[in-house]
Amino acid sequence: MAEFRDGKVSPLSEALLTDLYQLNMLAAYRKYGMEAPAAFELFMRKLPTRRGFFMAAGLEQVFDFLESLAFSPGELAALEATRRFPPEFLDYLRDFRFTGDVDAMPEGTVFFPDEPVVRVVAPLPQAQFVETRLLNLIHFETVIASKAARMVLAAPGKQLVDFGLRRAHGSEAGVLAARAAYIAGFAATATVSAGIAFGIPLSGTMAHSFIQAHDDETLAFEHFAHARPDSLVLLIDTYDTERAAEKVCALAPRLAAEGITLSGVRLDSGDLGAHARKVRAILDAAGLASVRIVASGGIDEDLLLELGRQGAPIDAYGIGTALTASPDAPALDCAYKLQEYAGVPRRKRSEGKATWPGRKQVWRRRAADGSLAGDLVAPEGAAREGEPLLRPVMRGGRRIGPSPSLAESRAYAAAQLAALPEPLRRLEPFRYEVEIDADLRALAEELDARSKQQA
Amino acid sequence: MAEFRDGKVSPLSEALLTDLYQLNMLAAYRKYGMEAPAAFELFMRKLPTRRGFFMAAGLEQVFDFLESLAFSPGELAALEATRRFPPEFLDYLRDFRFTGDVDAMPEGTVFFPDEPVVRVVAPLPQAQFVETRLLNLIHFETVIASKAARMVLAAPGKQLVDFGLRRAHGSEAGVLAARAAYIAGFAATATVSAGIAFGIPLSGTMAHSFIQAHDDETLAFEHFAHARPDSLVLLIDTYDTERAAEKVCALAPRLAAEGITLSGVRLDSGDLGAHARKVRAILDAAGLASVRIVASGGIDEDLLLELGRQGAPIDAYGIGTALTASPDAPALDCAYKLQEYAGVPRRKRSEGKATWPGRKQVWRRRAADGSLAGDLVAPEGAAREGEPLLRPVMRGGRRIGPSPSLAESRAYAAAQLAALPEPLRRLEPFRYEVEIDADLRALAEELDARSKQQA
Repeated sequence: MAEFRDGKVSPLSEALLTDLYQLNMLAAYRKYGMEAPAAFELFMRKLPTRRGFFMAAGLEQVFDFLESLAFSPGELAALEATRRFPPEFLDYLRDFRFTGDVDAMPEGTVFFPDEPVVRVVAPLPQAQFVETRLLNLIHFETVIASKAARMVLAAPGKQLVDFGLRRAHGSEAGVLAARAAYIAGFAATATVSAGIAFGIPLSGTMAHSFIQAHDDETLAFEHFAHARPDSLVLLIDTYDTERAAEKVCALAPRLAAEGITLSGVRLDSGDLGAHARKVRAILDAAGLASVRIVASGGIDEDLLLELGRQGAPIDAYGIGTALTASPDAPALDCAYKLQEYAGVPRRKRSEGKATWPGRKQVWRRRAADGSLAGDLVAPEGAAREGEPLLRPVMRGGRRIGPSPSLAESRAYAAAQLAALPEPLRRLEPFRYEVEIDADLRALAEELDARSKQQA
Repeated sequence: MAEFRDGKVSPLSEALLTDLYQLNMLAAYRKYGMEAPAAFELFMRKLPTRRGFFMAAGLEQVFDFLESLAFSPGELAALEATRRFPPEFLDYLRDFRFTGDVDAMPEGTVFFPDEPVVRVVAPLPQAQFVETRLLNLIHFETVIASKAARMVLAAPGKQLVDFGLRRAHGSEAGVLAARAAYIAGFAATATVSAGIAFGIPLSGTMAHSFIQAHDDETLAFEHFAHARPDSLVLLIDTYDTERAAEKVCALAPRLAAEGITLSGVRLDSGDLGAHARKVRAILDAAGLASVRIVASGGIDEDLLLELGRQGAPIDAYGIGTALTASPDAPALDCAYKLQEYAGVPRRKRSEGKATWPGRKQVWRRRAADGSLAGDLVAPEGAAREGEPLLRPVMRGGRRIGPSPSLAESRAYAAAQLAALPEPLRRLEPFRYEVEIDADLRALAEELDARSKQQA
């Protein structure tokens, strides 16, 4: 909630996390009594280059946003101070709440372009106003879950850990990235607040500075082992990786004598596959076969595939930038569009941005082996074959029942990934079939014809 | 500050916005009394492809973070509940504050790889602990300011407006992107909380849904004009751009008769240059030469350059994704490295990631016309020619004097951009000279030789 702090409103308010035009439009809707039910749908227009699917995430944060949406006295005062809004409109905002219905794909669902992921049905001002923050949340967590899913597919059997807070775009990005990556199959996060807020397993080793602050590398290892003996992982690339591995081998028996078990070593630079092989040999020769190798530094799904092909003896990966910044697709072409107002389907026809009108449902067919066999986007209410992906999740502004736990969403996501067509699981080019229902095409043509008559 | 909310700690706490390894290292430093002064420096390793310079931003948020850094009772309870930390360490965290010194380049400074942007000198645990959030803030705002500066350079004389909250990575990213873009020369933002928190001019028009919710486009324009008569900009590409421009021309005299002045029209799809020329002609023919054309939709610096070459009659641009996601460089290769501990310079030698040791200063030379002529990275304290870029900004954990206002930082950034070498101002490939001082090279060699003897 927003508060005045040092004379300014905290930028972390959710009600003011909006575009000015939403308030402008609200004022106009208000003035003209345009408060009939509106249906908006959120969807992606197209896949980024090299991508074959999206994974939905962020819905839980949307629930929090919608259920708590309210302008605090501080926020109303701040809006008043802009001198843009008359008192009667601020009075209206004072009582403004979200009372609408939401249907959505569960978090962890694999989906494709043109498929609505979230549908909001509410009085027009409400359904309109929530656009900005709803997009902001679903877009970002879907960016991360979709990217993380690729890494999970590229490294079967490996433990992936989120190291990305420092290169995430601000605090919320870091925390929500940890969540979305965990849903997609990451094993843990280094981000303390994300671990605590969401119950995600925490993981962390040491930085180079810890080694550098000591005059002697072995002494640094020893200090760290004595101070943090649990899940002990030592960083060995500060000066010379293999030389440090030998120091670790010399130290391990001494630690063992004190009851401290070395859990792993971490490599963070150079040719990770080559270093891992050498370090593995050094550790094995010293009887440290149970010591795991963790690698970090510039890891992305391409490198994971390559290291997998090499059979590099790496047990776990720390992944930062490539996860939280999603460099090949840091943004998705997502939209939240009015599809129906006052019972009448609507269609935007802007060049290259035309939408399929009306409320829609996505039906998914499966092959005999359970793998995804094709989707159909059809008008809502029309019975079609397969599994309907959009489910009722909010009614009258409140959640319907408890949300799935993060563990449940993660298991669901894993099942989704397992059911992907084989080329998509191998991250190879493949166009999954998304059919547009004939009734939907007919409706679009009918609306176009009608609006041409009017123009 | 963190609070328990619904039984969980708010993820927006700043003290827990950290990597687990920071706490692990703190525990070790604490145990071994390693609390001598440490100097860390934040710098970028290399420029992204196609980029010629960085622009520093985020320092003000770092001040807020460092001055307010403290673990709240709720945060300490949450850490205790993880069972990772003994009571005496939690007691230590209870009194943990930042009491160190910071030197930094002012926000808006143009800088280059290998140049320290921020230097922190503090007892080792403090200087270490602040790493994650400090990187998170400086990295992100620098990503945005550096990207925004390119757009500003690509569109001289045009008004650029941030439309990017919905595609930003979470809420803080959206709000801080507005700030960083404003410093770099953007004129306004659509993000209400950013406008209010930072005093950035707000700007906003209407969405397609507003038009679509009306059965008639002209009626939608009229309603909006009557509800929001100030700075009136109408969106004209929902169905047919030129047809809508004609409707606007028919409506404008009626509005004028009521005292409502049409300020602009907005295009959001198709070939923006071609539409702008046609719309300009339609408006001019109707005597609406003063009505401005605003364009949005997929705008980046390349398209700005292209539209500039075409002489497209566009007065202002709304820029979303290309600003807040910075797709060509959503992350920078930044590092925060220990350069000195207990008075002794330190050097990391990891492959491809070696650092220049010790505390450093950046000296900037200027040509006779005032343009930037080359930088020198030298040991701190050594007098060199030119302007020293790192300035004292915090001492003993507190700001030295008031920060520059956002307007002052913006003016400073504009002067920096104006002084860039000509090819950089045209966004053309150009390698700006950053020399490493001979004394610094000698120090690095000396440290390497000494550590080889020890190994």
